[in-house]
Order: sequence, then C-alpha cells, then structure tokens
Amino acid sequence: MAKPLILVTNDDGITAPGLRSLVRFMSELGDVVVVAPDSPQSGMGHAITLDNTLYSTRMTSLGEDGAKEEYSCSGTPADCVKLGLQELLERKPDICVSGINHGSNSSINVIYSGTMSAAIEAGIEGIPAIGFSLCDYTWRADFEASKSFVQKIASEALLNGIPKGVVLNVNIPKLDKDNLKGIKVCRQARANWKEKFDKRTNPMGKDYYWLTGEFELLDKGEDTDEWALANGYISVVPTQFDLTAHHSIQQINTWNLNE
Amino acid sequence: MAKPLILVTNDDGITAPGLRSLVRFMSELGDVVVVAPDSPQSGMGHAITLDNTLYSTRMTSLGEDGAKEEYSCSGTPADCVKLGLQELLERKPDICVSGINHGSNSSINVIYSGTMSAAIEAGIEGIPAIGFSLCDYTWRADFEASKSFVQKIASEALLNGIPKGVVLNVNIPKLDKDNLKGIKVCRQARANWKEKFDKRTNPMGKDYYWLTGEFELLDKGEDTDEWALANGYISVVPTQFDLTAHHSIQQINTWNLNE
Repeated sequence: MAKPLILVTNDDGITAPGLRSLVRFMSELGDVVVVAPDSPQSGMGHAITLDNTLYSTRMTSLGEDGAKEEYSCSGTPADCVKLGLQELLERKPDICVSGINHGSNSSINVIYSGTMSAAIEAGIEGIPAIGFSLCDYTWRADFEASKSFVQKIASEALLNGIPKGVVLNVNIPKLDKDNLKGIKVCRQARANWKEKFDKRTNPMGKDYYWLTGEFELLDKGEDTDEWALANGYISVVPTQFDLTAHHSIQQINTWNLNE
Repeated sequence: MAKPLILVTNDDGITAPGLRSLVRFMSELGDVVVVAPDSPQSGMGHAITLDNTLYSTRMTSLGEDGAKEEYSCSGTPADCVKLGLQELLERKPDICVSGINHGSNSSINVIYSGTMSAAIEAGIEGIPAIGFSLCDYTWRADFEASKSFVQKIASEALLNGIPKGVVLNVNIPKLDKDNLKGIKVCRQARANWKEKFDKRTNPMGKDYYWLTGEFELLDKGEDTDEWALANGYISVVPTQFDLTAHHSIQQINTWNLNE
C-alpha cells in the first residue's frame, strides 16, 4: 500500500516544539508535508485572511524531523489548510493533523481554537482531520509522553475513516507516559470563561485592558472531556461544523414570526 | 415593564451602515448600548485578543441613531462582547444583537463569521443573542427593507427567550420589502467554498496569493437556509456552540483505541 500523505499544521507557528513533535510522530506513519503559520496564531478562532496578501515560503532547514516538504505561511491556521490543499500539496492528503497545541482546547475552548479551526477547515474540504492539544502552555512541554497515543488515534482514523462532517478534538492531560490511563471518546463539557479585564493606563494617560479570565466548568457529567482529562485520560471529542441546533427548531417554530 | 437593555455589536466596524440601521431598529424596542470594533473585522471567526492590549473609546458623535451609549473597541467582535459585558454595561443586557452584516453568513459561512462569533460569545455568557446578515456586500446596501422583520425576530426572542445554548443566525435575502416573503426557521445547508488562490508576484519578485473562491452548495434540502434565501424568505438557523457530534460517539467507540 502507498504511504499515506499527511498534512501537518498548527496555530503556534512552524517552529513550535508541539508541531515539531507531531511531525516526528507522523513521519513514522506516512509522508508528511507541513504548512504552518510563520508566527503564533493562538486565539485566532476560525479567522481567514480576506483583505490581505498571503505569503508562503518553502523551508529547507527544518527537515530533520522527517517531513518531506515544509512551507511557512503568513496567514491563519485556516489559511494554511486552504493554501496547502489548493496550491502546495501535489494531491489530496489522506489526513490532516493540527498541533500539538501548547495548551488545552477542551470544552468551550474549541470555539476559540486556531488548532481546531485548521482541522475543521480540512474537515469541510472532506479530509479526515484531527486537532491535538496538550494541557500544558509552556514552550518546553513534554510532548513525548503522548507519542504512542497520538500515533494510535491517527492510525485508527486512517484505518477506519472519520464520519463525514466530523473532525476529532483530542486533548492530552499533562502527565508522564506511565500515568496516562488511556483514551476516552467524550462529549464537550459545558463551561465558560469568567472574564477579568486587567485595566491599566498607558504612559500617554489612556486606559487599556488585558483580557484574562478563569475557566469555569459548569458540567458534572462523567462523559465529558473535562472529566476524562481530570482523571488521567486522553479525550477525543467528535466535533461537527454543522452548527444547527436541530433539537430547538421545533420550539422556535412556535414563535409568531409571520403574523 | 422596564425597557429591555440591548447590546449591539458587529464585525464591519462601528461606522458601518448595517450597524447604524440595527441601532435605529433596536432603539424602538429598548435602550441600546453599542460596543463595536473600531475597524472592520470580517472573516475574523471567533478570534479573541490574547497577546495585545485592548482599547475602548466612548463615542459621543454617533448618537443620532438613538443609542444611549456607544463604545468603539480595538479588538475583535468577540472581544467587544466580553469587554462590553464585563466592563462597559451597567447590567447584563436582555439581548445581544450583532450586525447587520454586509454580506451573507448563511450555511458554512457561519464558521468564518465575526458577526456570529459576537452572538455566540454572548450566548456562551448566557445572554439571548442573534446575528443578522444581509446578503448584499455593498456598503450602501438597503437595510431598511428588513426593518419590520428584524424587529419581529428580536421582539419574539425577548418575549419567548432563546433556548439555552442556542443563538440565532438570521440571514436576509437582497430583496425589496414587498418581495420579502416572510421568515423561515431552517437548518444550516451543507456547502463549502471552492477556493481559488490568485497568485501574483510583488515588485520585489516574491510570490503572494489572494484568497478568492466560489460558494458551492452541496445540499438540495428545502429545509435549509440557502433554500429559504433563494426563495425569498429570511432564514433563522438556531445555532449551537456545543460542537459535539453526539451521533458519531458510538461509531468512534468501535475503534481500537485502547489495545
């Protein structure tokens, strides 16, 4: 069988250790092509570049991790996937993997996640896609501990295919390899961020804010990604981009909208 | 009964005619406070500003449309909602409306939409929220035609409440008032963009790209937003931010993830 073609991207930028680890892990499963942002794009959500030019640069110096080809791109994670699929890859990849993100994209964080937006973009284009995130925001996080799990999930996705309209959101707890208990398929926990704005005054006397906040879990379910992570499991949430709240259509149809 | 407090925002920026129209329409329903980006933010998806300062400026010159207070903000639409709720509004608003966007956010466009990201952000914070978009990208689009419909949808949402975890994505076809047939509650049509990158060379000899594309409808259903819009109806899609593809959990649980 021909080796699978694997598109690797992320939102922390092409030099991020999380991406370099993912390139290494994936190179053992197939031919890797990297198309990743030239600078960090965290919190970019599903942004795309509509009103600006996009540059891509073929990199030659980053190949020691086993990638066949690497391109950096001036745009967002979603831009990288669009540009990769349309212009840079010689054929449709067999899978697109995004990450490994430096930091959690579990629960409501999926909404703000550049890592997941890249995977979702690939999913929209009909390519099996997975976003991987490690619940450790540090640059020198230990990605090695999750190697066999990341490879297992990607291999199973290649083997079984991912249902149409679905992409996987994988989060990995910050644990040693020996303490990782396994993989759980979960639903997204209900949660939000309790924002706190840190208000300051600049040297010119104008007020400005830094956005900070505290994660607030609103869900006691034991079938959620947050439960899995808190209990030592890697969480896999099948995630969809049909955002229709089908269950509420009937209710809204009781409104007097056309009278 | 006290007048409802209405937070108005958008992604085209605080001076956009679509927002000015929405402010006028909403001022007839309640007390309006505007918190909107100081510059256009289209295609920003659910981006938030994590690594930069946020400024907000209280505006005094824009009040002719009937808003009680107006603030421009240096951030994204999601930032505007966070900052508005946390720092600028005196109390939790009764509803948040975003738009009216200059251009469609129907179907898969919801994923890239700054207009909808603002509404979704409010929804996450437990506030009934609606994004409004007119399928006309021009700056001088006719927003007046939809006035009674926009007011009707907002009034019904204030009256009935919007189910928890749901925000409304409203799209308005580009038609005269007399040709608008009514309002339909729909599901999101399956579609994607067939990207085309327009490749050029800059004066320094470096290649760059403009992202362009063609909308590709992949769905023949008559219960979709695209069908409603094509047939003269305003579409209302209840949209959720629990992205879990619940229906696929069973299938992915058949994978050999823990062997």
